[in-house]
Amino acid sequence: MAAARERAAGHRLRFDLRFEAYFDALPERLDTPPLSRFTPRCLELLRDLSLRGGKRLRVALLYEAARLVTTDPVPGLAEAALSIELLQTHGLVHDDIIDDAPLRRGGPSTYYAYRQEFPAADRTALGLAVLAGDLAAFLSMRVLLEADVPAELRHAMLEVQLDAGAETVAGQIVDLERDLRRIPDEEFLHTVCEYKSTRYSVLAPLRLGLLAAGERLGGEEDARLRRYAIPVGIGGQLRDDYLDLFGDEDSTGKSTGADLRAGRRSYAVSALLAAADEEQRAVVESALGDPHCPAATVERVRELARRLGVDRKLRADMRRCAEAAAAEAGTWRPHWREEAVAFFAGLPLANVVRP
Amino acid sequence: MAAARERAAGHRLRFDLRFEAYFDALPERLDTPPLSRFTPRCLELLRDLSLRGGKRLRVALLYEAARLVTTDPVPGLAEAALSIELLQTHGLVHDDIIDDAPLRRGGPSTYYAYRQEFPAADRTALGLAVLAGDLAAFLSMRVLLEADVPAELRHAMLEVQLDAGAETVAGQIVDLERDLRRIPDEEFLHTVCEYKSTRYSVLAPLRLGLLAAGERLGGEEDARLRRYAIPVGIGGQLRDDYLDLFGDEDSTGKSTGADLRAGRRSYAVSALLAAADEEQRAVVESALGDPHCPAATVERVRELARRLGVDRKLRADMRRCAEAAAAEAGTWRPHWREEAVAFFAGLPLANVVRP
Repeated sequence: MAAARERAAGHRLRFDLRFEAYFDALPERLDTPPLSRFTPRCLELLRDLSLRGGKRLRVALLYEAARLVTTDPVPGLAEAALSIELLQTHGLVHDDIIDDAPLRRGGPSTYYAYRQEFPAADRTALGLAVLAGDLAAFLSMRVLLEADVPAELRHAMLEVQLDAGAETVAGQIVDLERDLRRIPDEEFLHTVCEYKSTRYSVLAPLRLGLLAAGERLGGEEDARLRRYAIPVGIGGQLRDDYLDLFGDEDSTGKSTGADLRAGRRSYAVSALLAAADEEQRAVVESALGDPHCPAATVERVRELARRLGVDRKLRADMRRCAEAAAAEAGTWRPHWREEAVAFFAGLPLANVVRP
Repeated sequence: MAAARERAAGHRLRFDLRFEAYFDALPERLDTPPLSRFTPRCLELLRDLSLRGGKRLRVALLYEAARLVTTDPVPGLAEAALSIELLQTHGLVHDDIIDDAPLRRGGPSTYYAYRQEFPAADRTALGLAVLAGDLAAFLSMRVLLEADVPAELRHAMLEVQLDAGAETVAGQIVDLERDLRRIPDEEFLHTVCEYKSTRYSVLAPLRLGLLAAGERLGGEEDARLRRYAIPVGIGGQLRDDYLDLFGDEDSTGKSTGADLRAGRRSYAVSALLAAADEEQRAVVESALGDPHCPAATVERVRELARRLGVDRKLRADMRRCAEAAAAEAGTWRPHWREEAVAFFAGLPLANVVRP
C-alpha cells in the first residue's frame, strides 16, 4: 500500500511539472482576441485551479495502466494525462456553478473567483465561469491531437475521452435527479457514481494507458477493467461523501457539510436518511438543501450520523470496495506485468479512510 | 442572389432530415444511465432546439465549399454538418444561460424550458441547462469520429472544429468584456464578431468542406477564405443586431430589444450610443442592462435610433460587407468551380436587410 502511494506521488510530481509547462505555453498556442483582458484572466483561472490539483490519481492510473504492458516510454501518455486533467478541470468549473460552491481545492471556485471580481454583475460572473468550463472541455480534447502517435490510435484515444465526457454529463444529470428523490436506494447511487465519476476518473485512464501501450481492448480486457473500476469508483465516492460530512475543511479544501447544504443525497446523506427515525429525519431534512444552514446544525447532523453508525458503515463499505478491487487486480497476474499489477492491487486499500 | 437562396434552402431540407435521423438514433448510441428520466429529457430538449433550427447557413457553406472542388459525393460532409450544428446547439444553450434569454428560435430557450419544469429549483434548472450545453459540445466532436474518411482527414477536421470551439469561447468572453466598455469602438466590435461567430459559423464550415473534398489548405487558400469570411461574419452580426432592435419578434423568434435589456453593446446599440448627444445617451443608458425595461421604453429607444439614422447606417454597413465578400468570391473563379463560386458571390447580398 505504501509502495502504491509512493508510485502515485511520483507520477503526480512529474505530471505537475508538465501541466505547468502546458499552461505556460498555452497563451501562445491558443488564438485569442488581441486587446482582451478577460481571455488571459480566464486562462489564468483555469491554470490556478488546474495546478492546485489534488492527488492526480487519474494520472497515476493512466501511467500504471501502460506499465501493465511495458516499461518502455510510451508516446501519447503525456497528452492523455493532460487531456484527463483538463477534462477534470472542465467538470470542476461547471460543478461549482451547479452546486454554487465557493471553495475548491483550498481556493475559490472559478465561479466565486469571478463573483468576487464582479460583485455587482453576477450574470457576468456566471457567464464567464460557464465559458471557462467550456474552454477547458475543448482544450481537453484538443491536446490529444498533439499526441505523436499513429492517427488510428489518436482516434481511439479521442473516442475514449469524448465518450467519457458525454457519459459524465449524463452522470451529472442523474446526480441532480437523485437529489429530487427523498431517499435514493444504493443501486441508484451506484449508477450515479459509475456515470458521474468512475467512467472518466478510472475507466478512461485505464483504457487510455493500455491503448497507448499497444494493448487491444477487446470485450474480455474491458470486462476486467470494469470489474476493477466500479468498486474503485464507488470507494472513491464513498470517501468524498464521508469526508464531506465527517472530514475537516483544512484537509479537504472544501466546506464541510457542503453536500448537506446543497441538498445532495450523497452516500453519507442517503445512509443517514435511511438509518434515521421520523424525528431524526426531520432534523436532517431541516438542514438538507438550506445553503444558509449554520455550522452548529451541520455539527448536530454529524453527531446524529455518528450515533447512528453512518461513519462506521461508510468506512466498512469503503473497505469492502477496496478489497473487491484488490482481489480483481490479483487475477491480472498471468496477463499483465507484476509490478504494475501490484500497484493496482495495493492502491484501493491505500485510499480507505481509517477511523 | 435568388439562386443562392434556393440552393441554401435545398441544403437545409436535406440536412434537417439527417439531423432528425441523428437524434432518432442517439438514445441507442449514447450510453446513459438506466432508470433516469432526466437524461432522455435532456436529449429531447437538445433535439427540439436543434431541429427548430434557423436557416442552416453553415451547412450550406460547408456543402458549397466542397462543390468549389467537386460535384462527386464527398464522404465526411454529413458528419461535418452534424458537428457544425451540434456545436451551434451547444453555443445557443450556454448563450441563453449567459444572457438569461427566455426565447430562442421561436420556442423557449433550454434554460427557460428547465425553469418552467423546476419553478421552485432554479439551481437545478441552471445545472441541467449547463449540462445540456456540455453534452452538445461533446456530441459535436464525437460525431466527427464516425466520418468514414482516412484517419488523417478526420484528424484535420477535428482540429478545425476544436479550434473553432475554443476560439468561439474566447469570442464570447470578449463579448462580455465589450459590454463593460461604455462605447466600444468598431475595431473592437469587429474583433468580438470574428471570434464569437465568424470562425465557427463561416470559416470552419468552409475549411471543413474544402478539406473533405480533398483540398489542401495552405496559407494562400486560407487567406482567401478569411477575406470572404470576415465581411460575411460582420454582415451577419450586423443583421442580427439590426433585427434585435428594428425587427419584430414574429420573424426573429427572439424578444425584440433583448440586446438592450441585457446591456449588450451590439453594433446597433454601440452605433446609437456613438451618435447620441448627452441627453439622448441618458435615455439609452436608462434602458441598457435593465432586464425589466418596459416595451414602451424599447420603442422610444428604437425611435431615437431611427431619428439618428442608426438603421440606415447599419443597412449601409451590411451592404458594404456583402459587396466586399461578393468581390472576393469573384476572384475565386480561376481557382475553383464556377457554379459554387457563383453561390458564394450571390449569398452575401441575399442576406442584406432591405428598408
